[in-house]
Amino acid sequence: MRNIKLEIEYDGSSFFGWQKQVRKRTVQVEIEKILKIILKEEVEIFGAGRTDSGVHALKQVANFHSRSPISTEALKKTLNCMLPQDISIVSIGEEGPDFHARKSAKAKTYVYIVNNSDEPSALNRKREYHVVPVLDIGKMRASAECLIGTHDFKGFMSSGSNIKNTQRTIFEIRIDKKEKGRIEFSFTGNGFLYNMIRILVGTLIEVGAGTKDREIIREILQKKDRKLAGNTAPPQGLYLMEVGY
Amino acid sequence: MRNIKLEIEYDGSSFFGWQKQVRKRTVQVEIEKILKIILKEEVEIFGAGRTDSGVHALKQVANFHSRSPISTEALKKTLNCMLPQDISIVSIGEEGPDFHARKSAKAKTYVYIVNNSDEPSALNRKREYHVVPVLDIGKMRASAECLIGTHDFKGFMSSGSNIKNTQRTIFEIRIDKKEKGRIEFSFTGNGFLYNMIRILVGTLIEVGAGTKDREIIREILQKKDRKLAGNTAPPQGLYLMEVGY
Repeated sequence: MRNIKLEIEYDGSSFFGWQKQVRKRTVQVEIEKILKIILKEEVEIFGAGRTDSGVHALKQVANFHSRSPISTEALKKTLNCMLPQDISIVSIGEEGPDFHARKSAKAKTYVYIVNNSDEPSALNRKREYHVVPVLDIGKMRASAECLIGTHDFKGFMSSGSNIKNTQRTIFEIRIDKKEKGRIEFSFTGNGFLYNMIRILVGTLIEVGAGTKDREIIREILQKKDRKLAGNTAPPQGLYLMEVGY
Repeated sequence: MRNIKLEIEYDGSSFFGWQKQVRKRTVQVEIEKILKIILKEEVEIFGAGRTDSGVHALKQVANFHSRSPISTEALKKTLNCMLPQDISIVSIGEEGPDFHARKSAKAKTYVYIVNNSDEPSALNRKREYHVVPVLDIGKMRASAECLIGTHDFKGFMSSGSNIKNTQRTIFEIRIDKKEKGRIEFSFTGNGFLYNMIRILVGTLIEVGAGTKDREIIREILQKKDRKLAGNTAPPQGLYLMEVGY
């Protein structure tokens, strides 16, 4: 059996996220459907990270096993012809038998884009979150510093999740001003809990706007209380950027 | 009567272009509908340039006359709240009585974006044209040079148009490589004929790909024969960028 690795870009706007769900249009379902037609065999793909409805990916990684002799180049071209246009295959390669897109992943980077200019952008409305109050970058950076390292992030997880181990490690956080009033939040870690980045961003936005104290992040880490954190920032500003192995 | 000038961004994907049409969703109709509600009077807006179905604008300019005493700042905020999200008002100002968005315009700049990388982009599929053959920038630039100046551009106009004067002046053309295999075509002129930029881009692409000779542009200007030119490039790569007064 060959073990094939895909790097996938998608526009999350019209998907119920990555993960297979009954009678819902998801990225995994769409790709498996087309792979089955091309390879003439049942295929199950394993994604590195689940993304929610409306969340985008520039380089989601997935792998699957196949007996087909098709070349990776031909498979990429055929997939890009047959897949719906809101999914594109960025690259295809072959891996050893032990590679698993999720289990082998060492790090993931997510980016969240805030439009902090006065005006909403018609062209980017499904690709960023428009926040009117002027955000203080320095305050948000200082407040985010205590997130670096290994912590129990239970207070930054949506209550719907029944996961047991809520400890994760964040390697790096960057908060950068970009052109035209955009602010880019970038998070790299070994994994993230359900809605964790969107809650982190929602909380940092309140710190930046001055409606929450900059010590709130430290307090949430200590008390592990979701109610102390800010709103969950909306999905359309979030991008799975890269998975490291 | 006040004479109010709007700068407007829109995502052309879900519009039948700018211009008012019976029972069609157009940008002009949507803005007039909301202005009527806000200002409590009938309003007709004049746009600087008609854009076709699927064509975007970063700074379309329009003006209208009103007796309303509303401040421009309040009007901008209210419009951005009430307009559909694929239209946003970038700025509002007041002009003298003689200002007319189309008639007073001295120059317009349109940009066309080609994705000339191997892979289509899921996230940008409605915002660029994916062209697989590698395009020779030098050839396209050399070929475009003879377009600068005042010419009869009849050979670069779609046959549907019944306009009489087909002479226009192009001040500047830029063809630049951008990151990730993108090529940006930028055209500044005193006006453009129906589909002219999309036909120019379609023809330049064929020159860049080597399927048309670089002398073809000069020949079309001389013979004024649309059939010699390339295909009309699709609308989603085109942006009305700026109008100069």
